[in-house]
Amino acid sequence: MTKKLKTGVIGLGRIGQIHLSNLVHHMPDAEVIIASDLSPASHAFAQNLGVANVTTDAYDVINHPDVEAVIICSPTPFHVPYTVAAANQKKHIFCEKPLDVTLDAIQAAEKAVSENGVKLMVGFNRRFDNNFANVRNIVKADKIGDPHILRITSRDPAPPPVEYLKISGGIFLDMSIHDFDMARFIVGSEVKEVFVKGDALIHPEIKEFGDIDTAVIVLTFENGAIGVIDNSRKAVYGYDQRLEIFGSKGMAKAENNVADTLQHYDNQGGHSALPLHFFLERYETAYRVCLKSFIDCVKNDTPSPVDAHDGLMATAIGIAAMKSLTEGRSVKMEEVLQYAAV
Amino acid sequence: MTKKLKTGVIGLGRIGQIHLSNLVHHMPDAEVIIASDLSPASHAFAQNLGVANVTTDAYDVINHPDVEAVIICSPTPFHVPYTVAAANQKKHIFCEKPLDVTLDAIQAAEKAVSENGVKLMVGFNRRFDNNFANVRNIVKADKIGDPHILRITSRDPAPPPVEYLKISGGIFLDMSIHDFDMARFIVGSEVKEVFVKGDALIHPEIKEFGDIDTAVIVLTFENGAIGVIDNSRKAVYGYDQRLEIFGSKGMAKAENNVADTLQHYDNQGGHSALPLHFFLERYETAYRVCLKSFIDCVKNDTPSPVDAHDGLMATAIGIAAMKSLTEGRSVKMEEVLQYAAV
Amino acid sequence: MTKKLKTGVIGLGRIGQIHLSNLVHHMPDAEVIIASDLSPASHAFAQNLGVANVTTDAYDVINHPDVEAVIICSPTPFHVPYTVAAANQKKHIFCEKPLDVTLDAIQAAEKAVSENGVKLMVGFNRRFDNNFANVRNIVKADKIGDPHILRITSRDPAPPPVEYLKISGGIFLDMSIHDFDMARFIVGSEVKEVFVKGDALIHPEIKEFGDIDTAVIVLTFENGAIGVIDNSRKAVYGYDQRLEIFGSKGMAKAENNVADTLQHYDNQGGHSALPLHFFLERYETAYRVCLKSFIDCVKNDTPSPVDAHDGLMATAIGIAAMKSLTEGRSVKMEEVLQYAAV
Amino acid sequence: MTKKLKTGVIGLGRIGQIHLSNLVHHMPDAEVIIASDLSPASHAFAQNLGVANVTTDAYDVINHPDVEAVIICSPTPFHVPYTVAAANQKKHIFCEKPLDVTLDAIQAAEKAVSENGVKLMVGFNRRFDNNFANVRNIVKADKIGDPHILRITSRDPAPPPVEYLKISGGIFLDMSIHDFDMARFIVGSEVKEVFVKGDALIHPEIKEFGDIDTAVIVLTFENGAIGVIDNSRKAVYGYDQRLEIFGSKGMAKAENNVADTLQHYDNQGGHSALPLHFFLERYETAYRVCLKSFIDCVKNDTPSPVDAHDGLMATAIGIAAMKSLTEGRSVKMEEVLQYAAV
Repeated sequence: MTKKLKTGVIGLGRIGQIHLSNLVHHMPDAEVIIASDLSPASHAFAQNLGVANVTTDAYDVINHPDVEAVIICSPTPFHVPYTVAAANQKKHIFCEKPLDVTLDAIQAAEKAVSENGVKLMVGFNRRFDNNFANVRNIVKADKIGDPHILRITSRDPAPPPVEYLKISGGIFLDMSIHDFDMARFIVGSEVKEVFVKGDALIHPEIKEFGDIDTAVIVLTFENGAIGVIDNSRKAVYGYDQRLEIFGSKGMAKAENNVADTLQHYDNQGGHSALPLHFFLERYETAYRVCLKSFIDCVKNDTPSPVDAHDGLMATAIGIAAMKSLTEGRSVKMEEVLQYAAV
Repeated sequence: MTKKLKTGVIGLGRIGQIHLSNLVHHMPDAEVIIASDLSPASHAFAQNLGVANVTTDAYDVINHPDVEAVIICSPTPFHVPYTVAAANQKKHIFCEKPLDVTLDAIQAAEKAVSENGVKLMVGFNRRFDNNFANVRNIVKADKIGDPHILRITSRDPAPPPVEYLKISGGIFLDMSIHDFDMARFIVGSEVKEVFVKGDALIHPEIKEFGDIDTAVIVLTFENGAIGVIDNSRKAVYGYDQRLEIFGSKGMAKAENNVADTLQHYDNQGGHSALPLHFFLERYETAYRVCLKSFIDCVKNDTPSPVDAHDGLMATAIGIAAMKSLTEGRSVKMEEVLQYAAV
Repeated sequence: MTKKLKTGVIGLGRIGQIHLSNLVHHMPDAEVIIASDLSPASHAFAQNLGVANVTTDAYDVINHPDVEAVIICSPTPFHVPYTVAAANQKKHIFCEKPLDVTLDAIQAAEKAVSENGVKLMVGFNRRFDNNFANVRNIVKADKIGDPHILRITSRDPAPPPVEYLKISGGIFLDMSIHDFDMARFIVGSEVKEVFVKGDALIHPEIKEFGDIDTAVIVLTFENGAIGVIDNSRKAVYGYDQRLEIFGSKGMAKAENNVADTLQHYDNQGGHSALPLHFFLERYETAYRVCLKSFIDCVKNDTPSPVDAHDGLMATAIGIAAMKSLTEGRSVKMEEVLQYAAV
Repeated sequence: MTKKLKTGVIGLGRIGQIHLSNLVHHMPDAEVIIASDLSPASHAFAQNLGVANVTTDAYDVINHPDVEAVIICSPTPFHVPYTVAAANQKKHIFCEKPLDVTLDAIQAAEKAVSENGVKLMVGFNRRFDNNFANVRNIVKADKIGDPHILRITSRDPAPPPVEYLKISGGIFLDMSIHDFDMARFIVGSEVKEVFVKGDALIHPEIKEFGDIDTAVIVLTFENGAIGVIDNSRKAVYGYDQRLEIFGSKGMAKAENNVADTLQHYDNQGGHSALPLHFFLERYETAYRVCLKSFIDCVKNDTPSPVDAHDGLMATAIGIAAMKSLTEGRSVKMEEVLQYAAV
């Protein structure tokens, strides 16, 4: 039997637990050697899954001599420091999004990864959602021709608490960043300009610290396509994740996944199910496929499906979006990227 | 300009008025010379549409020297007498369904039509419904291969008054007859056996005179396909008209037409429109296309799209269905047809 | 019987013929006294419908003593002159869109209408489309709560000839103007700012005369809602007319009307019908309902459902959109409206 | 922590492996002590999942002193012998369908279970499919009123090899039995009469041994409802599993689950995904929920959700269906059940 990839997991919060479970139950090509979390309370979760070696120190994972790859699920400010340290230890890295909220930090991570010849994959799991992956396949197969218009609808079922929003980094880096990555993925071209119109229509009080909860974002791509993303922090009918790409030969769209296919008709009309509640339900399989593609790229020594450049561009679009909102004008990506040696 | 076909309309009830309006507004190749109805009250309807010549006597229409084709919309018992009289006057005939409730009468009509060399078309308008016509096209284009299973759902929004039901001829000849014709049309083969299971679940009192309001009818076809029709006199959500044909190469189905395409989502789920209310709404266009195809077949001297044999077979299946219900067994069509020189 | 409204039709091009047919066949409360068209070749159309009195001079219609209301279907440059002349003759006016491409002219028409106490209705027929009218009803019934995001997709099946595009007034006043009116209608609030990103992706040569064929337009409304329209001159799969309104209590959307409800499944997947081909098919009923609502508002002396202000605002948004495209920035409506006494 | 239910698995074929994986990965309230399979080749599967104790003798599982519940996934002829032996050892039993193909044997199992006071659950997993379970909830909540018409479509993507068909027990006990159970489950009433029309349209050679591959089955229920099942061994577009229940207050239906929500439009029409390929994909979650409900009913000492009577009735309907096919008539259930002390 082929040797299993030895991994260590850093961070056992909500996402860390998902990745750890998937590694144990669904990745026959990988095993988990060690896991870390600042809070000892979360250690029992790993031990119940058979991971005996748990620690409060992330560097115990990074420096463990048997660990070949680290799965970084810590809070965002630690993503780059852990990535750099792991790269210097010649460990491959799977890191949750966003890599960082500044371009400088991301470039430091990119440099460490490059210099040490290790692989880095950013956890943009939605690319691995069945629906969206198939839309991308349709585009790659030239079935829609030249892309002209991209539409992404991405609405959460309910906003996080205002206390969280204060430290979230803002809607663009906390929420829309997934859509920025999806836009680049589907269209297959770089964004060159960003315009935002947004407002705090759900929680007006978050305007005080410069955030919004409703946004329409126009992206112009280098290949000529024009994209539009609409975001809301609160869709009372559930998690709304749809997209559509229109081009010279046709159109492809992906609808929501729903809880069941039941249709009930009475004298009031037809009634059908809500979308799956939130990202844990909607992207359950995508998390698994995403992580598996990391294990595969390390084992087969193939390029990372979502690399540091992808992580950098998503953050850069987020920064441009914030600049557009603040300055009330369309912002060219070169304004954001000019000081970064992209 | 090409000469217009001179027509006369017999019967100005609900269906007669539809045909008359369609002739006046939508058949540039036809004109209406005269119209008749027993009740003078309905004459104003024709006059408002510009048909000055109205009468209470159907034979004024049939015998009018300028009339080339008659449109028979009288009560069922008069269908065959008027058809025979018109044929003997060398007039082409469009007759509402059913031609008659006995096979002998239908054969008399068939004979008169044949001997006089005129055209007879039976008003099975649903064949001209866009959805069903396209299913038939799919079958004819061999896209579903050999037909194996046919499913027809045909449910009315509300039953007629019990008083009407007493004289309706029973559910099979009053309502299911449309589905019998549709079944032959879609499958493209003759029915050879009929089995019915039915009950009076909506109005139990109609059992007293041998009628039912809910039925499941199994049809076996000569080409091996098996069909099933489900009928109900009362679907609270509206007129339910769907069908599906399944075969060796695939499946095709036609869904209901709905009032609008709106979908409304709130925290209870998705909500959509009801089907179009009843046959006047659902088959509005089909009535027009049906009548136009009669005008065309007369003007172009092509075969009638729905001829006396079609009218005879639909009635014969209805008679077999009643026999199956009464005798509680599967009935071969030859039992019904044996005395008819088909 | 109640007296019929006496009308005259000016212009017998494609739209004029639709309105004339609808008046003759479907408006029992109206009659057509006279019709005009510069080209005598089109007169036969009116005569075949029973309108004996035809002329090449629009003023014969406007000045005809019996005419109570005029239906203006002439080329756009004549809309305002005929409207002013008809108003001065105390005739009610139904005028095709756009009223004009300048705000001054529209205001002149508005003044004439107001001073003469006649009714003016602008032919924004899409408001009367069943799907969109029901979305508006959902919004008015407060079923989506406060509107937050509006999305309109409006794509034509094929562009007009380049020769036509040169004189069309540009995509915003020729095509998007319908969407601008729809946006105001659905949201129920005025637009306060417009941003456009567009390109000539289908026919690059039209850039030479300043036009585009692909556009994403962001509208900000006074009530806080943000809207986005995407337009294309060429959707190879047909006429794509959809919209969605999202708010604090839910979401409502209207999908395309399709040619039939057939679904065909083979080993390649499911296959379904294209949208109805173009506006004549999609909005056939809407044209009728739209014109009928004009006849009704005149007969019942109720306010015009789509008045001069509606006509003015749609044009003003179009002007702002062109300004945004040309100057590459977001444009406030007050910049466009400041010289107009709105 | 609450004590885990100690289970043993008999049979490690396709279904046995599914149940074993689910027990290990998804049933925190259960553990697997031992597993058996005649073929030692399958033992590695269990060992890889951490089940060290494997055997070729099913009685090692049944008689293991620590085992509290057995999961029987052996070939059908062993279901009843193992069930009786396990009951006599006071073990709870989860048994795959069908319990047996004769009513006598099922009653023997029922007696052993009853006398020993253990629980027996039959693995009719489709009851636990999200779509169908929700249709049943709609019926139980009286949202469709009195059930009038039930429609089940159940078509396999491809027939098993003819060699398998020869020993399968026939389409009714091998395939339709799931639909018979579903029919009773959805309608909530016993079947009183069965009529079948069927044929071998895909593999005519199977007629030689009395089997068919295409069937339409009419079920009459004690509460008056009429049901119809259509079965085919070969739907080229995939696994087709739909149902619809129609009643006095409305209708509810469940559509297929599809591979993805993508819709692609080109100038040929719309194109969408096929249904999930076969039962392993479609009912993956249902298998898990089904098994979990067994674990729960044992741990909480609640009644078995699918008991021996359910197992008996599904087989009895299958026997009646075969009798109807053979004798060409409608068969009353009392003809089949009269010698069984039901």
